[in-house]
Amino acid sequence: MLSVSFQGEHGAYSESAALRYFKVRIKTVSLKTFADVLRSTDDKKTDYSILPIENSIEGGVGESYDLLYHTPLNAIGEIYHRIEHCLIGLSKIDEIDTIYSHPQALGQCRQFIQKYNWKSIPTYDTAGSVKLIKKMNKNNVCCIASETAAKIFDLPVIKYCIADHSNNYTRFLILSKSQSHKTGNDKTSIIFSTLHKPGALYKIIKIFHDQNINLTKIESRPKKCNVGEYNFYVDFDGHINEQRIKTIIDDITKNTIFLKIIGSYPTAKLM
Amino acid sequence: MLSVSFQGEHGAYSESAALRYFKVRIKTVSLKTFADVLRSTDDKKTDYSILPIENSIEGGVGESYDLLYHTPLNAIGEIYHRIEHCLIGLSKIDEIDTIYSHPQALGQCRQFIQKYNWKSIPTYDTAGSVKLIKKMNKNNVCCIASETAAKIFDLPVIKYCIADHSNNYTRFLILSKSQSHKTGNDKTSIIFSTLHKPGALYKIIKIFHDQNINLTKIESRPKKCNVGEYNFYVDFDGHINEQRIKTIIDDITKNTIFLKIIGSYPTAKLM
Repeated sequence: MLSVSFQGEHGAYSESAALRYFKVRIKTVSLKTFADVLRSTDDKKTDYSILPIENSIEGGVGESYDLLYHTPLNAIGEIYHRIEHCLIGLSKIDEIDTIYSHPQALGQCRQFIQKYNWKSIPTYDTAGSVKLIKKMNKNNVCCIASETAAKIFDLPVIKYCIADHSNNYTRFLILSKSQSHKTGNDKTSIIFSTLHKPGALYKIIKIFHDQNINLTKIESRPKKCNVGEYNFYVDFDGHINEQRIKTIIDDITKNTIFLKIIGSYPTAKLM
Repeated sequence: MLSVSFQGEHGAYSESAALRYFKVRIKTVSLKTFADVLRSTDDKKTDYSILPIENSIEGGVGESYDLLYHTPLNAIGEIYHRIEHCLIGLSKIDEIDTIYSHPQALGQCRQFIQKYNWKSIPTYDTAGSVKLIKKMNKNNVCCIASETAAKIFDLPVIKYCIADHSNNYTRFLILSKSQSHKTGNDKTSIIFSTLHKPGALYKIIKIFHDQNINLTKIESRPKKCNVGEYNFYVDFDGHINEQRIKTIIDDITKNTIFLKIIGSYPTAKLM
């Protein structure tokens, strides 16, 4: 059976996304950190890793970007997974004074929490906060996680859909030691750095434009070693095994001081 | 005396950055959330707000970007502030089993913490973690914060410079109800959205390139309402009161569906 490593406790959104992505039966492996997740696949303990990349509300997941920079694994797939935050606990809503969850989940339910004036306590993952309040067994606490997590830890959902914005999706990448085949509807993710001078980024964007290739994402992130210098994280339409994409990668290589191809993979539907 | 609102307890990096930015005596006002910080200046309770925007290690501060999108305040200055994380507590290093701090600080000292195999517990701000462990008065706990925070809460620094990377800077924006004057060495921050079609971003980048204007930062962030559509956060050299900048803003307006000028302000040295 295929095995997939994910960060968090069983019931985490990452695990649900993995179960949706792989339509066959898989073994999901719960690990503590994103770095552990990738290391597990790199060490051949799991076949695949799943990593959250960006959320429609909170934006990019900084730690994931940094790991993509360093990992020898290839992105072979992506999936958009709807985040449906539930309020979970043993209490009636008016007995609650404290709420636990991952900082991103607390952030995504900020207006809801402020309305009740509860004290927020950050935890390392959403499903972990269910495990925690289950163990506490108290009436004044609750947490935010998925319905799946509530079921796994056998705690009631007090209220469904408590996020401030209903369009709450996270985009995940699936990574492995191998690469994915061309399907005709693919996306490629790359990281590059340019010399820090005017026009350097323009040259790269122009290469894509001249070949009529659509950029689906661009993000500059500060380099750790040089303040004011940036790495660019770019996604675009096309597969690295297409000749036109090989040509532009050659062009980009000539105009950058660093280039890494994270992988080419079938473009996911936005649901 | 000028008053400046910041997020966190006294001793927070934001407060230190504000004290460095304003070379005159200021009154610093400690508030709980970034939203509170901006609201305070908007309500004329404080003259200025200071907000962390991006860190050389962790990248952009998602919540700050969202607030910039909505705030009526103008960015009038920026400062790069060196983050020097200290290990703080009453214990000898080999008695410790648990470490408290803001998730970003825990992330920036990840390798250091893993070496000792301590349990990490996230808190809402670094200086707040000092206040917390002071109150706990236990020998097995420690926290990560600035030397200033250790002094304010009268706790010893166990070890200096514990971050995994020594080049650890945060860039802050200073915001107010007024605007800043042209100095000849200025930067402008804007947010815009384009129609979701190939070449839309290229057109904007070309406007900057044709006028020989240097982009210092670009970041796409998912729109909350439409998955797959992005807002772009861009910084570039020049002041909105210069004719050449006014001209390109007019050009950009014609090619975007939304444009907001966050402000023009003197470019800070990278230290």
